[in-house]
Amino acid sequence: MSNITDLRGLFLHGLKDIYYAETQSKKTIASMAEKATNSDLKSQLEAHAGHSDGHLKRLDQVFELIGEKAEGVKCEAMDGILKESKHLMSEVSDAETRDAAIVFCAQAIDHYEITRYGSLATFAERLGYSEASELLGETLGEEEEADKRLSVLAESTLNKDAV
Amino acid sequence: MSNITDLRGLFLHGLKDIYYAETQSKKTIASMAEKATNSDLKSQLEAHAGHSDGHLKRLDQVFELIGEKAEGVKCEAMDGILKESKHLMSEVSDAETRDAAIVFCAQAIDHYEITRYGSLATFAERLGYSEASELLGETLGEEEEADKRLSVLAESTLNKDAV
Repeated sequence: MSNITDLRGLFLHGLKDIYYAETQSKKTIASMAEKATNSDLKSQLEAHAGHSDGHLKRLDQVFELIGEKAEGVKCEAMDGILKESKHLMSEVSDAETRDAAIVFCAQAIDHYEITRYGSLATFAERLGYSEASELLGETLGEEEEADKRLSVLAESTLNKDAV
Repeated sequence: MSNITDLRGLFLHGLKDIYYAETQSKKTIASMAEKATNSDLKSQLEAHAGHSDGHLKRLDQVFELIGEKAEGVKCEAMDGILKESKHLMSEVSDAETRDAAIVFCAQAIDHYEITRYGSLATFAERLGYSEASELLGETLGEEEEADKRLSVLAESTLNKDAV
């Protein structure tokens, strides 16, 4: 991590942080999709992992728009969230409870991405990178939508099946 | 972490996870309040650290309502979020940029708590612990409110000062 002296430096650091986070979380979401039993959950997670590719492409565009090289920087927050998710998965021995636990974990991943994209979109806007802000806002909207869909599925079906 | 076989087990694990997370994050939020330069940010963070005590008290009540001992379990997700926050703080050398970075980090803490309280409130409801669900929902509302207040302050003042 380089020394940060202004909002642009913080913005650039945040972009690298979420670039790494998207790359790492995509693998975990794909592995959760494999472990899921409920078919709606499985397809939501497969779509989610697919969206991550689109989010990385948008990040590539944002780096280009601001004249910087696209690269990731170790994100200890996402590493911690993913480590906890893997531990929790390994502790659940019942298939229906595992589906509820998968949503519990996937939403923690989503919420990290929601807060980061929210901050980054406002940083970009303040810095005058309006096109970058728009791209980051599009990803933010997709993350919020994915999170809501998981809530609906958990509340309508998965949590009931896990009781 | 014990073996989890049903939604109640997942709920109990989640309560212990957020109990630990609240205890740890409170210290970091208090230290952020000390480091903040902007007086509005300082007072928001001081109030935030104060709210954590109320959240822990509510969790004590929830443990009691479900007939379990109040205790924490290591939360690797919050540990990762706090570790990243400390590293980022140490990299920012400018006071106004530090204020923007503090909001960036505090909102990551808030969002972890928002997703956990959201899941836990719905688990409690599904398990028939309506009073516990109400308590968890109250804390969720306070976390969402704190997050919104930080966004307003960042967008209206802090990000501009950090450019």
